[in-house]
Amino acid sequence: MRSVIDVLDLTRAEVEELVSTALDIIANPKKYSEKCRGKKLATFFFEPSTRTRLSFEAAMYELGGSVLSVPGASLSSAAKGESVADTAKVVSCYADILAMRHPKEGAAFVAAKNARIPVINAGDGGHCHPTQTLADMLTIFREKGHFDNLTVGFCGDLKYGRTVHSLINSLSRYAGIKLVLISPEELKLPEYVKRETVIPNKMEYVETENLEESLPELDVLYMTRIQRERFFDVAEYERLKDSYVLTAEKLSLAKKDTIVLHPLPRVNEISVKVDNDARACYFKQVENGKYMRMALILKLLNSAAENKEKTPLNCEKSLVFEKCRCKNPRCITSQEQEIEHIFTETSNGGKSVFRCVYCEKEAENK
Amino acid sequence: MRSVIDVLDLTRAEVEELVSTALDIIANPKKYSEKCRGKKLATFFFEPSTRTRLSFEAAMYELGGSVLSVPGASLSSAAKGESVADTAKVVSCYADILAMRHPKEGAAFVAAKNARIPVINAGDGGHCHPTQTLADMLTIFREKGHFDNLTVGFCGDLKYGRTVHSLINSLSRYAGIKLVLISPEELKLPEYVKRETVIPNKMEYVETENLEESLPELDVLYMTRIQRERFFDVAEYERLKDSYVLTAEKLSLAKKDTIVLHPLPRVNEISVKVDNDARACYFKQVENGKYMRMALILKLLNSAAENKEKTPLNCEKSLVFEKCRCKNPRCITSQEQEIEHIFTETSNGGKSVFRCVYCEKEAENK
Amino acid sequence: MRSVIDVLDLTRAEVEELVSTALDIIANPKKYSEKCRGKKLATFFFEPSTRTRLSFEAAMYELGGSVLSVPGASLSSAAKGESVADTAKVVSCYADILAMRHPKEGAAFVAAKNARIPVINAGDGGHCHPTQTLADMLTIFREKGHFDNLTVGFCGDLKYGRTVHSLINSLSRYAGIKLVLISPEELKLPEYVKRETVIPNKMEYVETENLEESLPELDVLYMTRIQRERFFDVAEYERLKDSYVLTAEKLSLAKKDTIVLHPLPRVNEISVKVDNDARACYFKQVENGKYMRMALILKLLNSAAENKEKTPLNCEKSLVFEKCRCKNPRCITSQEQEIEHIFTETSNGGKSVFRCVYCEKEAENK
Repeated sequence: MRSVIDVLDLTRAEVEELVSTALDIIANPKKYSEKCRGKKLATFFFEPSTRTRLSFEAAMYELGGSVLSVPGASLSSAAKGESVADTAKVVSCYADILAMRHPKEGAAFVAAKNARIPVINAGDGGHCHPTQTLADMLTIFREKGHFDNLTVGFCGDLKYGRTVHSLINSLSRYAGIKLVLISPEELKLPEYVKRETVIPNKMEYVETENLEESLPELDVLYMTRIQRERFFDVAEYERLKDSYVLTAEKLSLAKKDTIVLHPLPRVNEISVKVDNDARACYFKQVENGKYMRMALILKLLNSAAENKEKTPLNCEKSLVFEKCRCKNPRCITSQEQEIEHIFTETSNGGKSVFRCVYCEKEAENK
Repeated sequence: MRSVIDVLDLTRAEVEELVSTALDIIANPKKYSEKCRGKKLATFFFEPSTRTRLSFEAAMYELGGSVLSVPGASLSSAAKGESVADTAKVVSCYADILAMRHPKEGAAFVAAKNARIPVINAGDGGHCHPTQTLADMLTIFREKGHFDNLTVGFCGDLKYGRTVHSLINSLSRYAGIKLVLISPEELKLPEYVKRETVIPNKMEYVETENLEESLPELDVLYMTRIQRERFFDVAEYERLKDSYVLTAEKLSLAKKDTIVLHPLPRVNEISVKVDNDARACYFKQVENGKYMRMALILKLLNSAAENKEKTPLNCEKSLVFEKCRCKNPRCITSQEQEIEHIFTETSNGGKSVFRCVYCEKEAENK
Repeated sequence: MRSVIDVLDLTRAEVEELVSTALDIIANPKKYSEKCRGKKLATFFFEPSTRTRLSFEAAMYELGGSVLSVPGASLSSAAKGESVADTAKVVSCYADILAMRHPKEGAAFVAAKNARIPVINAGDGGHCHPTQTLADMLTIFREKGHFDNLTVGFCGDLKYGRTVHSLINSLSRYAGIKLVLISPEELKLPEYVKRETVIPNKMEYVETENLEESLPELDVLYMTRIQRERFFDVAEYERLKDSYVLTAEKLSLAKKDTIVLHPLPRVNEISVKVDNDARACYFKQVENGKYMRMALILKLLNSAAENKEKTPLNCEKSLVFEKCRCKNPRCITSQEQEIEHIFTETSNGGKSVFRCVYCEKEAENK
């Protein structure tokens, strides 16, 4: 049973195949309007996200399918103490495919390991949100025509912004990418992203605090919100949130064919006056997200149909280390009952690093 | 792009055309059962209203379409600080038509100015609720056969009751209407409704505190709930709420063909014992509301299909007055970021009156 | 108009007919996939229950119908003080059939008495949950091939567990049933269930506190959760909740063809390690619940179609006793306005017992 938890669960070829399918859907919507007749998508949102939920639901309707919708946590059996694993087993009796959002990191992985249907991670805490990255990729392709040889600026919260890390991961598969990392010192791109993705893939990068100086050279500007919910300290949030606001004046410094992306929702980090600029592509991203979700639903349902055995996700690379514990309070292991603590082992300068397979955070030895 | 924020956005001829369509739907439901196949209605309810939401959703299903449902505010991206304008832009990527309820006055107008799809106001605070008035109109037509020469009693909360103001507006287009305004002193019809609608249209009216004395002459009795949420002072609410309760005994004073309407939900202002009286038409109103919403959805989708350019609502009559500010705390301008304060200018006894285009309240000069 | 509030509203023959229909649906799903085209199911959940709601919704989609979904109380007009009776009258204008969950006992009965469409009780407080019992019955039939001559163990909370009482009621119609009632003293099967169901039907039964000793003789083990929300005293809950946990070790004492059922959600009363045991049938129950709901929706819609008059449920056996009052604080009569207090009279050892028709609790004389 194939599921997508992280955008890296898809190969470069598979992402490009999804882009192809999305372009064909855009060109020939009628060809797809009955593809999922009789199929049901369940959208389980343990924390609300209207945009993402409706995008999945619109995608399923445009494929002719039906939707079982759980728009918020207070509306779910989780309030009675049900585990994510049981929820996944139960929903497998009702639906053909599951899109799940959950506040805990690794929750979608737990669901995929227990479901008898394909699972799409629609956001698991600060961890992964692969269909956002698929939306970003389709937007870049439709606007620029290619993925390589692009200078891509990321601005704002590069520390906690999961969409930033994920898009860097996806672009790391292409040649000639230059990253311009624009953020305050406190919100710089984490060292491990550089160590594990940027440097091994020989991506060129610069780090700067200055948006205006960086703008003229960018092909793509990826703006992010400085999210209140990622901060422990409200005062720190207040000090930083206005630092990196894109105004019409600043955008006048950019090239004519620079494209501006944003995962939305925005608060005020892009002025409303920028919306009418042809370079503003963040609402196109929304539409592209729907098409990529259509493509992904089709791919996973086709894969499930070929694979007659309805078996949960097999995590081949996983190794159980009884001597480790995941100590990340945002990890699903902190909440789920009777869950195995499983880790992958990697090497950092000759030293073993154990990483939780659910949240991918480093684990401590017991 | 055509939207309906206020029932007066529709001409008298258009309302009558909607009544005609509704009657045809009632007579020939199968003719309409596939009209919206492949179309999607989004129902965005930033405050919950099951009746209204389900009425829209049932309407869309009976037209063969699909529904993207947001049943409550806590379930929406508004919790992350997203503006109504952005929500409207985003939902335009997913749906073909939007029905929106919001606690702030003018919110649906903001949505219509930003959406690339038709917007139907499903209630914006105490301001407008046009599809309720369409339900009222169809009920009057089906029960009485005409709109003119009717004596119409309005009972209860005539001050805050938006459905009362809106139905008076709609009836003001017909000849021979007599209004009987039955309310406690504190909840009388506002002066501006008399000044701007009742008097200019030469509608006959009387004001009274006595329901029983008024009953014998009425063709239509429009009951309203004295709504707790419209009162700042709970004690005042408690004192008034039972003043105007319709019992079976009181109804025995009415004519045999008087019809009783109520926008629902009722609490106790109409006794349950009245429900079985043939003159009680408030549950018929519910059904008629569904048919008028079907007619309206069809009309707006047809209009959008003809108008190939997906452009937001153009508000031609609007004028920007930088020197004014809307001070109404219930207006969407008190909440929405980067929103232009726009006003219309009218004259009251030679003096200029500036009225906010969003909430229609009078503005103060800065 | 036929409704199902209690599983005993269905005769033994009707339950068996539903089982037959369900088996035919399982064998020939395509035959049923358009049976409800153009029909609408409303799911009104005044308290959330994802599993039950999605089961009904999945059932309706697999029959080709549409769904009007109210996933939680805060999202309904009940927040504005609307009665259950009015809600039922209103939803009759929108939907063809209603599945309702409500925290008050008897609420679904009130809905059925006022709706012009069939009502299915999807749980009314601690009172009834007939479609769960239908799921249990289909699971027993599919796994054991018959309903008679079974030794059935019930373990856990036999006092408050409505699913336990309801399944005992259903099994009481068959010969050769032996009940093994496994619970702590505090949570024993109530006397009235023994007096009114077990004893009159000559069902053999034993009561015990020991799960392990009972296991070897069981054909069916029905596990239940010790539910926090049924306890007034949290300390009492904490003391008892772990008493009756089924582990893989305990299950090794059971026969090879014993089946383990659970109405779900579970917390920890069945170890996750039991899930892979072939005798664990609780996720099969979930799937069977969907099929029985499909069968029931079909049956009630067919019955409504034959019965042209859309009249509310006629409660023939009911007698009004003005001298009685229902004093059960969990009964819908404690909340609903202008509701008649109606009672049935039965005899207990020569003494008259008046039982509220809504919640079925004994009433006190005024």
